[in-house]
Amino acid sequence: MKASEIRELLKWVTENVISFGGGMPDPSSFPIKDIMEITRDVLLARADKALQYGATGGVAELKEELIKFMGKVGIKVDGPESVIITVGSQEALDIIGRLFINPGDYVITESPTYLAALQAFRIYGPRIIGIPMDEEGLKVDILEETLKKISDDGKVKFVYVIPTGQNPTGITMSRERRKALLEVASRYDVLIIEDDPYGYIYFGDGESPDRLKAMDSEGRVIYLSTFSKIAAPGLRLGWVAASREVIRWFELAKQSIDLHTSTLNQYIAAELLKRGVIERNIPRIKEIYRTKRDLMLQALGEYMPDSVSWTKPSAGMFIWLTAPENIDTGEMLNVAIRKYGVAYVPGKSFYPNEERRNDMRLNFTYPTPQQIFEGIRRLSLAIREYIQ
Amino acid sequence: MKASEIRELLKWVTENVISFGGGMPDPSSFPIKDIMEITRDVLLARADKALQYGATGGVAELKEELIKFMGKVGIKVDGPESVIITVGSQEALDIIGRLFINPGDYVITESPTYLAALQAFRIYGPRIIGIPMDEEGLKVDILEETLKKISDDGKVKFVYVIPTGQNPTGITMSRERRKALLEVASRYDVLIIEDDPYGYIYFGDGESPDRLKAMDSEGRVIYLSTFSKIAAPGLRLGWVAASREVIRWFELAKQSIDLHTSTLNQYIAAELLKRGVIERNIPRIKEIYRTKRDLMLQALGEYMPDSVSWTKPSAGMFIWLTAPENIDTGEMLNVAIRKYGVAYVPGKSFYPNEERRNDMRLNFTYPTPQQIFEGIRRLSLAIREYIQ
Repeated sequence: MKASEIRELLKWVTENVISFGGGMPDPSSFPIKDIMEITRDVLLARADKALQYGATGGVAELKEELIKFMGKVGIKVDGPESVIITVGSQEALDIIGRLFINPGDYVITESPTYLAALQAFRIYGPRIIGIPMDEEGLKVDILEETLKKISDDGKVKFVYVIPTGQNPTGITMSRERRKALLEVASRYDVLIIEDDPYGYIYFGDGESPDRLKAMDSEGRVIYLSTFSKIAAPGLRLGWVAASREVIRWFELAKQSIDLHTSTLNQYIAAELLKRGVIERNIPRIKEIYRTKRDLMLQALGEYMPDSVSWTKPSAGMFIWLTAPENIDTGEMLNVAIRKYGVAYVPGKSFYPNEERRNDMRLNFTYPTPQQIFEGIRRLSLAIREYIQ
Repeated sequence: MKASEIRELLKWVTENVISFGGGMPDPSSFPIKDIMEITRDVLLARADKALQYGATGGVAELKEELIKFMGKVGIKVDGPESVIITVGSQEALDIIGRLFINPGDYVITESPTYLAALQAFRIYGPRIIGIPMDEEGLKVDILEETLKKISDDGKVKFVYVIPTGQNPTGITMSRERRKALLEVASRYDVLIIEDDPYGYIYFGDGESPDRLKAMDSEGRVIYLSTFSKIAAPGLRLGWVAASREVIRWFELAKQSIDLHTSTLNQYIAAELLKRGVIERNIPRIKEIYRTKRDLMLQALGEYMPDSVSWTKPSAGMFIWLTAPENIDTGEMLNVAIRKYGVAYVPGKSFYPNEERRNDMRLNFTYPTPQQIFEGIRRLSLAIREYIQ
């Protein structure tokens, strides 16, 4: 089953179907009242700027606030010229493809990895190599072997990773692995793209491991994050922190792609940071996510047969479920939806080049607690029907 | 002087410099109070949707409103699947390049034409051919000769035109020329890209000529427009109307570029249309633009030497000024800014392949009436210094 077919099938999901297929945050986490007040204040105080064309790089106030915000997690940024505001992180992924990938270039990702990153990169014709993961994240020893092998054959443009609460697996890369990754990247002189949509809402025990960008002493990391999970996806606001040179390339590309990101939304986001709304909202989001994750883990434990396993994420929005090898989750999806009334994303399309067909991605942030329990029960019935 | 150098020089423009260089609408034309009220109402009624991820094609309510809006100027659209919402028209231009241009393909534009369209297309490596214009717009006889010549050599992908209030010249294509353009395009079977940012605020005497899209019986026209001039550029909202097939391609491209356009802004725009704010605002915008155009024409008449000529636009935001042939407006810009305190965009970069250096683009919508008079006076001094 192709990705486009799955997308069509998921569109078919109706009210009677419980869907774990999306990747949407819980709407109760949106700071609605604050956005309402802020929008009014912004329009009262400076509508002439907030509704006007703006600079391609982004609104200065927002960049300043983001530099402070990143500073709190140890990311040092060399001034506003090292930050650009994008239309979500997706735009950053597309621009990365446009700037760095020539047809035939090697690109390395975790395996499995974020589907929409694969789609964005593939437009530009790279050879994508996936590196397997364990519970500590990307297997850096295998990355190194791979880099060794490839370096005779062609240029590796970058290693793309989602170190915290990875999409689709929910895995968080350990501190040791992060260090090792930076060392190997340095030794082979490759860029690292750190996609960090979930780092600010890490809900595991203790502290989240440091960002790669915070550990990077060589300017090797291009750091991506977004307001989609700490505020609201409907604003379509992401940002990139990198060297001034790289940000200048981003600006040139973005200028011909869409001139700039919505100024109104950028002013709203700047105030969300300035007034502490984001910082006050983060603990609440963590609590919502942690509770829903716990519920899904509990339901999985209660309903799933022993031959099924799954990850226990401490960040992100997804649990990665592995069914027995005889089950093709892509084939099963039709029956899961039409007979059992439950949907998910089959794992196959997240793999850049492995032929694994028995995994699936389950989103726990959007469905309600009742839907989580009932949906996992239904899913277990579908899996039991398919187990031979 | 390169486009990037000019951009750098224009950045240097300070408070003491009067700039006709931008392309910004008058901020007094923004419906600020309505946007404030609407945002509150949208967030009260359906924040769960307006702040959430949305469909790549756009918010259904907005597409329905746009179909009605376009219907009033005679554009018939075959349902919401024939419309897509973009991040301003600029994103549509980039996607057009991505979808239609392979390196070496021919693309035809007016000469001069919109700088940012040239930039967006050039990324994809086309051979761009500019067709000269007169006061009735694109010279269709020359277009036909060109198509005849080219058709042996390679594929012409599309003809890109801004028929109403063209950027940079301010020229509006006559009805006869529009008919002729559609006939020639049909005979040679090429697509037409109709970029229509200014059509809804035509401020000339009588009615604006019909849109190409409204005259098109063959589905040959891809129609682009934007909220930047009828509401506010800071929303970054544009739209495309075309065949379902073409819109489907747009959606696939946009999905990997930025997932979708800001849902919040789309709901705001839907309400701006639904509540009649746009329709009530349009006469006000026309009045502002007409008054400022008249002022600039008057100032030009008073101050410019006889050897200088300019267009008399009935739509758009620009007057195109032609200085005596010995003047290189790119070279003159430095002196105009530093010695006389006035800025403009040199004409050279608007030409896809002509080597004309004695034109400039003057924006009349953003500067104040005082600035228009004083700025034109200063500009006349600079030109007089350069006349030999």
